[in-house]
Amino acid sequence: MALSIKPIGDRVVVEAAPAEEKTASGIYIPDTAKEKPQRGTIVAVGAGKTDEPLTVKVGDQVLYGKYAGTEITYEGKEYLIMKESDIYAIV
Amino acid sequence: MALSIKPIGDRVVVEAAPAEEKTASGIYIPDTAKEKPQRGTIVAVGAGKTDEPLTVKVGDQVLYGKYAGTEITYEGKEYLIMKESDIYAIV
Amino acid sequence: MALSIKPIGDRVVVEAAPAEEKTASGIYIPDTAKEKPQRGTIVAVGAGKTDEPLTVKVGDQVLYGKYAGTEITYEGKEYLIMKESDIYAIV
Amino acid sequence: MALSIKPIGDRVVVEAAPAEEKTASGIYIPDTAKEKPQRGTIVAVGAGKTDEPLTVKVGDQVLYGKYAGTEITYEGKEYLIMKESDIYAIV
Amino acid sequence: MALSIKPIGDRVVVEAAPAEEKTASGIYIPDTAKEKPQRGTIVAVGAGKTDEPLTVKVGDQVLYGKYAGTEITYEGKEYLIMKESDIYAIV
Amino acid sequence: MALSIKPIGDRVVVEAAPAEEKTASGIYIPDTAKEKPQRGTIVAVGAGKTDEPLTVKVGDQVLYGKYAGTEITYEGKEYLIMKESDIYAIV
Amino acid sequence: MALSIKPIGDRVVVEAAPAEEKTASGIYIPDTAKEKPQRGTIVAVGAGKTDEPLTVKVGDQVLYGKYAGTEITYEGKEYLIMKESDIYAIV
Repeated sequence: MALSIKPIGDRVVVEAAPAEEKTASGIYIPDTAKEKPQRGTIVAVGAGKTDEPLTVKVGDQVLYGKYAGTEITYEGKEYLIMKESDIYAIV
Repeated sequence: MALSIKPIGDRVVVEAAPAEEKTASGIYIPDTAKEKPQRGTIVAVGAGKTDEPLTVKVGDQVLYGKYAGTEITYEGKEYLIMKESDIYAIV
Repeated sequence: MALSIKPIGDRVVVEAAPAEEKTASGIYIPDTAKEKPQRGTIVAVGAGKTDEPLTVKVGDQVLYGKYAGTEITYEGKEYLIMKESDIYAIV
Repeated sequence: MALSIKPIGDRVVVEAAPAEEKTASGIYIPDTAKEKPQRGTIVAVGAGKTDEPLTVKVGDQVLYGKYAGTEITYEGKEYLIMKESDIYAIV
Repeated sequence: MALSIKPIGDRVVVEAAPAEEKTASGIYIPDTAKEKPQRGTIVAVGAGKTDEPLTVKVGDQVLYGKYAGTEITYEGKEYLIMKESDIYAIV
Repeated sequence: MALSIKPIGDRVVVEAAPAEEKTASGIYIPDTAKEKPQRGTIVAVGAGKTDEPLTVKVGDQVLYGKYAGTEITYEGKEYLIMKESDIYAIV
Repeated sequence: MALSIKPIGDRVVVEAAPAEEKTASGIYIPDTAKEKPQRGTIVAVGAGKTDEPLTVKVGDQVLYGKYAGTEITYEGKEYLIMKESDIYAIV
């Protein structure tokens, strides 16, 4: 599950969980209308800052802000790289 | 009462108290006009920051700003996740 | 005089002194024109921040900025909750 | 000369020196055109902040910014309450 | 691979990787439309700040923000000089 | 050369050097067009801040920003009061 | 090479290298179109800030931002005075 990316400082790499492709009522939502997922899995963590080690670890399921982070492509897959402070909670 | 969510740092998860559905004069208020509740119950707390442990604990009734926090859905229920500094007081 | 509210951190709860209902010349001022009071009584204080205990205490008469704090209703009465730094002086 | 007001933290209370009522050429200036005084006397000082005691003391003649501070009325007289950092110099 | 430039403080010099000149579908992209590369190689590092040594070292492949840094020309070649905090991750 | 003003904290009082009244080509410049002087003499210094004593001392010739400081009148003469950080160099 | 100016704190004085008067293709560029030089020589350095001595020293060739610093004239010559943090690198 871990990635060979080494984020700098207090950054982490998150693999977003796939958005649900149907609404509760079973309507198919075309790709552009899908709400971006806000749940994901930590796949890489930085070393933290001096005296502030990170709380999350690889494998943690996390909730994060809808507009958090920057999209990066690594080995053909998309990830988000964000600061740990953009993560709300481990679920 | 506690939730299995683990907020990061100085964040807490609050379950908002239901808004009153009638005004003092007994008029029914349709859903969109209801003022958002500003009272709630702490259901999860983070570990705090280095040298700054959190003051609130799970079960505390709190007052918080009308626009504080971010709504999250967890196991089908809505909660607010906010920083402890968004909480005004324990009541 | 103290309230059972426990403000978080460096916050205090103030009970505003009633505004004067007549001007010096004895003209009655209708409710909406009354200037908001800037004098009040501390009714609850937080624990302060790490290494910064609060200066004011319950019972102190204080002066505070006209637009300081947030109004809260507690047991049917209105109070202001504000940071101690919004208070100018004990009088 | 001292006032029984106790300013919070790094605040001080200043009694402004009266503005000159005539210009050098002897023209009387009506009240609204008078330039606000920038010289005054310290009449009350706060306890300062942790590790930063105040420099000014009661009785000091000071120069301060034209728009510094907030006007307060105390026992029928007007004063300015400001942060010590709004004071330029003791003269 | 190292450059004789000595960046100040927490700055690093990055040699950007060349942008791909064809898209996946084989269409040639004229020069002005090419997306600026976001991957590069560290060619010089500063000494860091007091108590904050740098994490990256010369030779590291890094990901960085699209608009990070300032372009400099050194011995006829273009480089980017940026703060280490503009670098997302070592890949 | 020293003034009996005692600036607060990291402030200093500067007596501006008179602006040149002629340009190099010998044209007289009317008063309103004269560029404000940027060179002056320190005439009073504050005590500095905790752990940050001031570098300049009374009598130092200094260069300072064109718009630095606030003009004060003291015993009929104009001075500038500014923070030491507004001073560029001792010349 | 050193100047008798003593910059305050973390400031340095830079003598800009002359801009190239011809482009690579040999076209003469009139004075107003010349790009300001971004390379220069340190001619004076401040004492640094508490616990943060400066890295550059007199004689260092440096790269700095196009809009960094303030122009000063000293003994008939133009220099730039800037904070060390405006300098990118020693070359």
